[in-house]
Amino acid sequence: MRILSHEIPSAVGQSVTVAGWVHRRRRLAAVSFLILRDRSGLAQIVVKGSPEQLDELSEETVVQVTGTVAANPQAPGGAEIVDPVIVALTEPAATPPIELWRPTVGAGLPVVLDNAPVALRHPVVRAGWEIAAAALHGFREALSGQDFTEIQTPKIVGTATESGANVFALDYFGGPAYLAQSPQFYKQQMVGVFERVFEVGPVFRAEPHDTVRHLAEYVSLDAEFGFITDHRDVLVMLRSAVAGMLQAVGERAGGALERLGVALPEIPVDVPVVHFSEALKIAGADPDEPDLAPADERAIGEWARREHGSEFVAVEGYPMVKRPFYTHPQPSDPRWSNSFDLLFRGVELVTGGQRLHRYSEYVAALEARGESAEAPAYSSYLQAFKHGMPPHGGFAIGLERFVARLTGAENVREVTLFPRDLHRLTP
Amino acid sequence: MRILSHEIPSAVGQSVTVAGWVHRRRRLAAVSFLILRDRSGLAQIVVKGSPEQLDELSEETVVQVTGTVAANPQAPGGAEIVDPVIVALTEPAATPPIELWRPTVGAGLPVVLDNAPVALRHPVVRAGWEIAAAALHGFREALSGQDFTEIQTPKIVGTATESGANVFALDYFGGPAYLAQSPQFYKQQMVGVFERVFEVGPVFRAEPHDTVRHLAEYVSLDAEFGFITDHRDVLVMLRSAVAGMLQAVGERAGGALERLGVALPEIPVDVPVVHFSEALKIAGADPDEPDLAPADERAIGEWARREHGSEFVAVEGYPMVKRPFYTHPQPSDPRWSNSFDLLFRGVELVTGGQRLHRYSEYVAALEARGESAEAPAYSSYLQAFKHGMPPHGGFAIGLERFVARLTGAENVREVTLFPRDLHRLTP
Repeated sequence: MRILSHEIPSAVGQSVTVAGWVHRRRRLAAVSFLILRDRSGLAQIVVKGSPEQLDELSEETVVQVTGTVAANPQAPGGAEIVDPVIVALTEPAATPPIELWRPTVGAGLPVVLDNAPVALRHPVVRAGWEIAAAALHGFREALSGQDFTEIQTPKIVGTATESGANVFALDYFGGPAYLAQSPQFYKQQMVGVFERVFEVGPVFRAEPHDTVRHLAEYVSLDAEFGFITDHRDVLVMLRSAVAGMLQAVGERAGGALERLGVALPEIPVDVPVVHFSEALKIAGADPDEPDLAPADERAIGEWARREHGSEFVAVEGYPMVKRPFYTHPQPSDPRWSNSFDLLFRGVELVTGGQRLHRYSEYVAALEARGESAEAPAYSSYLQAFKHGMPPHGGFAIGLERFVARLTGAENVREVTLFPRDLHRLTP
Repeated sequence: MRILSHEIPSAVGQSVTVAGWVHRRRRLAAVSFLILRDRSGLAQIVVKGSPEQLDELSEETVVQVTGTVAANPQAPGGAEIVDPVIVALTEPAATPPIELWRPTVGAGLPVVLDNAPVALRHPVVRAGWEIAAAALHGFREALSGQDFTEIQTPKIVGTATESGANVFALDYFGGPAYLAQSPQFYKQQMVGVFERVFEVGPVFRAEPHDTVRHLAEYVSLDAEFGFITDHRDVLVMLRSAVAGMLQAVGERAGGALERLGVALPEIPVDVPVVHFSEALKIAGADPDEPDLAPADERAIGEWARREHGSEFVAVEGYPMVKRPFYTHPQPSDPRWSNSFDLLFRGVELVTGGQRLHRYSEYVAALEARGESAEAPAYSSYLQAFKHGMPPHGGFAIGLERFVARLTGAENVREVTLFPRDLHRLTP
């Protein structure tokens, strides 16, 4: 019966079997050390002398080791395996393209990405995804606990979701189709069915720019729910989702945070909120600016930390001209919207808001943008509104961006298993 | 503060507010009834007389109702709301394309699918997806509890996953790319990183046949894990995943099962296993048949019920010629494979098995099929094997097929939110 390396310290004196990858060999004259890596961590195996067998056990070879556990304060976890019988489960592994046993990653990002199937084995490289996986769990748990229903909606769609730009076209049995840029339309329709829905899945953007923030395919964490008063209810729900994600990361990816030297932020129960017009003043920007520049966002982040002791701050009321047609205007002044961005350490993390919910509002909003509610692109979507939809809203979190912000990764590709972009379609 | 309709019976004598859709009006001379539907169920609102306001409250109009809860054994849950103040939250809803208030669905499948945004509101239509959502939760919980890491791998790939057939091609920044037919290659690579992984996500098949079982896009529940002895370990893990799915459906979608009149099956702790060669004998089929016909599967299902009292049975050892190149042969006789199908009530539900894990085995397996391990399609995939992979295996469950089998739906489209097939790309 195999045990994991992290269970070794509690088995001192016993005969145990472990299995994993040869992480590193160190051969001395009188004794050799073999460091074994499994999913739980590292284990030290002590081999008398420097037997020929070790020649075959190159780094990354998969082995099974049976031996006796001995206490040793110098070993990982304070125990090691002595008098081992080592059986290779594979042929000797070829030398990896990056040295996986070094504490830090000694290769640049392109080399890491080109060799992802192996580079991800490095404990520091894989840490990003460990955090992502924990965040996914936390997101679903937080929303399931609030009575949300998970949905899975089509990624092949008949028309571009929100605009014709940056959409991937494909051949669908001889006709045109597209990859969904977001589940926005579907999740709104499903509010009419389940009231509260979330979806975790891929979204696709034919993003023609080569930046550290953009991917052609990423994982979107979407939520949408009905019977709200306004976007402030959406912000409260978003806060609880983010809090759930952070909590799950702390509970399930503590080792990954440690390897990356990252401390988890706290999100206050009441996230400070500032109106867009006020935000421009705080940033010292022109009051007619329709959007916040990166420097403005940093200034607002600084303000929130200074005035509210918070690393998170929401900016509400973004100008309607900069928001999609389904955005609900601010009732007191329709130049502004009932939507928000959530900033984390001065950088945008999430966008959310209240949507229109009356059919007549959609007709007017589309007409105002020179489009028709009768267009095939909108007919199924708007059917939901013809037949009664409650006031509702929602948000979308980009998983890779969330993890990059959390870990301080400069490039979102560092925390993506197999990134897709303008220049990269493999591995 | 809004309460849900299922909370009404515990609020007798209190003033409450509920909100939802007008499910049905019944107007009599002295009294009218308004049935309100929210995510938790139905509520009865009693209105004195037949006021003009009810003219405006057409079915599916969204309303908020404040009134007093009174006990009434005839009302749903034994209580109703009297002396209501009703506020419409939308314009009067247009008449739905199918009558949502009828206990059974009075429209054929094409009408239901064409009008999915609204038809899914019918309690019987939405029941299929409630079961699916619960199954997703159970799958993830079962595998997370066994130390699996969730992964999300790319759906846009540079080469067709397993074969050139039935693959959707797309324009990727001016070059060719494809939609992933399965995460098979990625999940195997990730065994080298996390040992145990699962993925829930869309897979794409350009399926040119119009059948009740095939979709062009469906949700695949994939698992793969290392350090197994053989495919029997995979079957044990699959059993625990299916048991978790069934348990979650019972716990979280009991109402949906009831609406559909479906009883949950039990999966035995030890699923009966029969070898493919034996299965042919049980079915009375030609011993040289390379596959099981539907009638054979039914016969084996009958046999399992009769001999083992089980609705589930695994057939192991399928001929290697019918399995993909990465399948591990049966060590005692390489004509057979270390793979299996899990049958439920005589129909195939899941395929799984042990994979090859040595690089040299992949080279030989590909050469035997006239392919080269040096081909670009395999280079990243096989990199994982060059650098050490443990004995491993896994399985894939089609979500929609699983739910259809469970509910007895004849057509997998009945339990898919927005099916995609040869003829359907909308809604």
